[in-house]
Amino acid sequence: MRKLLLQLDSSPQPSVFDRVVALDGGADEVLSYGGVTPESIRDLVHGAIFTRGPKELHNTAIFIGGTDMSVGERLLAAVRKVFFGPLRVSVMLDSNGSNTTAVAAVAKLQQAAGNMQDRRAMITAGTGPVGLRAAGLLAQAGADVAVTSRSPHAGIQAVDAIRQRFGTTVRAVTMSDRSHAAARLEGAELLLNTGLAGVCLVPRDAWVGRAGLRVAADLNAVPPLGVEGIEVHDDGVVRDGVKVFGALAVGKLKMKIHKACITRLFGHNDLVLDAETIAEIARDLLMPRG
Amino acid sequence: MRKLLLQLDSSPQPSVFDRVVALDGGADEVLSYGGVTPESIRDLVHGAIFTRGPKELHNTAIFIGGTDMSVGERLLAAVRKVFFGPLRVSVMLDSNGSNTTAVAAVAKLQQAAGNMQDRRAMITAGTGPVGLRAAGLLAQAGADVAVTSRSPHAGIQAVDAIRQRFGTTVRAVTMSDRSHAAARLEGAELLLNTGLAGVCLVPRDAWVGRAGLRVAADLNAVPPLGVEGIEVHDDGVVRDGVKVFGALAVGKLKMKIHKACITRLFGHNDLVLDAETIAEIARDLLMPRG
Amino acid sequence: MRKLLLQLDSSPQPSVFDRVVALDGGADEVLSYGGVTPESIRDLVHGAIFTRGPKELHNTAIFIGGTDMSVGERLLAAVRKVFFGPLRVSVMLDSNGSNTTAVAAVAKLQQAAGNMQDRRAMITAGTGPVGLRAAGLLAQAGADVAVTSRSPHAGIQAVDAIRQRFGTTVRAVTMSDRSHAAARLEGAELLLNTGLAGVCLVPRDAWVGRAGLRVAADLNAVPPLGVEGIEVHDDGVVRDGVKVFGALAVGKLKMKIHKACITRLFGHNDLVLDAETIAEIARDLLMPRG
Repeated sequence: MRKLLLQLDSSPQPSVFDRVVALDGGADEVLSYGGVTPESIRDLVHGAIFTRGPKELHNTAIFIGGTDMSVGERLLAAVRKVFFGPLRVSVMLDSNGSNTTAVAAVAKLQQAAGNMQDRRAMITAGTGPVGLRAAGLLAQAGADVAVTSRSPHAGIQAVDAIRQRFGTTVRAVTMSDRSHAAARLEGAELLLNTGLAGVCLVPRDAWVGRAGLRVAADLNAVPPLGVEGIEVHDDGVVRDGVKVFGALAVGKLKMKIHKACITRLFGHNDLVLDAETIAEIARDLLMPRG
Repeated sequence: MRKLLLQLDSSPQPSVFDRVVALDGGADEVLSYGGVTPESIRDLVHGAIFTRGPKELHNTAIFIGGTDMSVGERLLAAVRKVFFGPLRVSVMLDSNGSNTTAVAAVAKLQQAAGNMQDRRAMITAGTGPVGLRAAGLLAQAGADVAVTSRSPHAGIQAVDAIRQRFGTTVRAVTMSDRSHAAARLEGAELLLNTGLAGVCLVPRDAWVGRAGLRVAADLNAVPPLGVEGIEVHDDGVVRDGVKVFGALAVGKLKMKIHKACITRLFGHNDLVLDAETIAEIARDLLMPRG
Repeated sequence: MRKLLLQLDSSPQPSVFDRVVALDGGADEVLSYGGVTPESIRDLVHGAIFTRGPKELHNTAIFIGGTDMSVGERLLAAVRKVFFGPLRVSVMLDSNGSNTTAVAAVAKLQQAAGNMQDRRAMITAGTGPVGLRAAGLLAQAGADVAVTSRSPHAGIQAVDAIRQRFGTTVRAVTMSDRSHAAARLEGAELLLNTGLAGVCLVPRDAWVGRAGLRVAADLNAVPPLGVEGIEVHDDGVVRDGVKVFGALAVGKLKMKIHKACITRLFGHNDLVLDAETIAEIARDLLMPRG
C-alpha cells in the first residue's frame, strides 16, 4: 500500500519545496492542494480518513504548509477537529518552513551550549514565525529569552503569542535599528538572528569581544548577512571566542529534520508534528537513543 | 507503461477521496484536475487520447467526479464526444460517489431479497442523485418502485429524470414529513432511505411489524439515522423480521465496487462505467462467474 | 532518487498532454502547475533547486508549457534568472508543442532534401509560433526562407521576431488567400504549411507539377487539409514528383522528439532545451552518432 501525503497549502500554488522534500522523505505520492482554507478542510480530510481501513491509515498522512504560519495553525486546528476516534492520520505543520527552521536553529544552539537552564538568549527580530517558535522552544528548555522588535507593540504581541502557544514567558526588547544592537546584547550568552533576508541587524562590534557570549547563529542567507562576521557555511566554527552558525549550516540541518519528519509521519496514524514534537525528532536525529 | 488515470472533477478542488481510491484501485498515477467544465474537456481529453498509441490506450483512463452529478453527466457526454474511432479511453462517472453508492445499496437489497420482479420498493427522499440511480436500477431489474419527496414537483421531476436516463417508469409519492412514513410504506417489501445525513425519515413504528416488509437499508451515517432502529454497521442482520443494512455496511461494499471499477478501467480502452455497467461489475464482484 | 519534472504551464490547467509525455519519457513524478506567471516563478524554481544537493540536481528538471509561446519565452527567461552557479536544473521550453513540432517538421524536410544551403523554402501562414521557429531553424541551416501572412504587418513582425530570436534573416510575403498560392510558390523548392487546422491554404494546382518543388509538408491534421493532395499519414511518399509529409507523420516524429528531450533533461542539470538544442536532439535521434 502506497504512502500518500496530502499536502494542504494555504498559498495559491502548493509549495514545490515541500513536495520535493515529501517525495525524498518517503512519500510515494503527494496529493497537493493550494489555496486551502479552514472551510475546505473537512472534505479534504474526509478523503484521507475514509478511504482506507483503520489499520492502514499509517500509510496516509497530512502536511500543512503555505507562506503564512498563522493560517497554517488554523488549518491544523481544523484538521484535528475532523478526526474522530481511530479515524485519523498523522499530520505535520510547517508553514513557510518555520517549525523545522526554528527547531534546527535551536538544536544548533543547544548542541553548542549544552544545558539551556537560565541561559540568557537574545533573538533579534524575533517576532516572526521562526523567531516566535525558537523563543518558545528555548524558553521551554529553561532559557531566559528576550526577543527584539522595532516597535514595542510587536514585542508585546510576540510575548502574548508565545505564552499562548508554548505556555512560557519571554521578554520583549525594543531595538529600533542596528545601532542599538550592542546595548541590547548586554549579558546575552546566546544570540539568534531571525531577521529579514538581506538585512544586517548585528554589526561586528556589537558582538565580537563581548564577555559571556558563547554561541551565535544567523538565519539570513542573503548578503548583507544578519550578524556581521558569521559566514553562511559556518557550522560551529569559533570566531572571536564565539561558536557561530550560518544560515546554510542551519538550513542543512533543517532539511534533514524535515525529511526525517516526513519519514516518521508514516510510522503511525496519530502523530501531530508541531514545534515541540519536531524538536523531539531532531533530538533523536542528532543523539540517537539506544 | 504506467496506468494513468485522468481525474476530471467539477468541484474547485479535485476530490481527495477519489484520488486515494484510484491509487489503491490500481492507477499508477492520477492526473487530477478541479473546476473542470464541459468547455475545458476537449483539450484535457486530447491529452489522454493523443499521447499513446492505440494499442496502449488501455493504460490510460478517465474518472469523472465532483459534488454535482448533473454536471458530471454533462462532462461524461462531452468526453464521449471527443473520442473518435479507436482513439478513446475507458471512462467512469461517479460524481459524489452517487453511482457506486446506488449500486452498492441496490446490490444489498438484491442479495437479501433475491429476484426483484414486481417487488414493491420504496425509496425515501429518492429525488437526489443516489435515489434516482437506485430507483432506475431497481426498476430495470423489474421492481415496482416508488420514490418519496417532500414536494409533488420534485417527485414529477424525478420520475421524468429516471424515465429519460433509465428508460423505466417509477411512481412519485409525496411525503411531507416523517409522520406520514407509516402510511406511505403501506405494501412496501423493500425500503431504501437516501435522505440527508442527520435526518430521520422513517421512525421505528413506521416499519417495525409491518407485514410484507422484507429488507430495509439506510444510507445516512450521521445520527439521527434515517431509519430508526437500523445501526450503521448492520449488514444483513434481521431486526424485527426485516433484513437490514446500515450506511457503513453499504459504504464498505461501495468502496469495494469503486476500487474494482478502477481496476477494470485499465483492462480496456472502450468501457463507459455508469450506473448499469457499474452494477454489472458489482455482480461479478459478489457472484464471480465460472 | 526519483526523477522529478516540474511542469510550469501558463494556461489555467496544466496540459494533460505534456504530463503524459513526461511520464512516458522517464519522469518518475510530474509536479504540475497551471496559471504560472513570471511573478510566481521564483518560489517555484527555488523549490526545485534548493531541495536536493548540487550533485543530485540532474534528477530534477523543469518543463515550460502552455498555449502561448510568447508567455513561455518569458517564463523561461524568468526561470534562468533564478538559477545561480551550480544551483540550477535542466529546463525545456515547448509551449503548445511549438518547438518539438517545428523541429520535427524541419527534420522531415532536411531528411528529404539533404543540404539546406540556399534552398528556397516557403512557409505558408508562417507567423505563428511553429512557423517562426521552423523559419528560424531553416534559415540557420542555410535556407533562403520566406514566410507568408495575410497582412503585411504580420509579415514584418515575423521577420523581426525571427531576427531577434534566431539571428537570421527571412523574407515576408503577403498572401491574402489561397488563390495567390500558385504565384507565391514560384521558385520554392521546399514547402511547409503551418496554417490553422481545417484551412486549406495551398490548392492542388498551386503545387502539383511545379518545377523545382522537391519536398512539401503540411501540419494541419483537420480536413480540409492545408496542402490539398497531401494525406495526414504521408511520410515521405512521392506524389507528383514531390516528397510529401502529412500532419500525423510529422506528429509521430514530434512525439518521439518530445519524449527523447524529457529523457535527456535528466542526464544533466544545466541543459536549456529550446528550438536549436531540441533540433540537436532530433538529429541524434534520426542519425545516431558513432
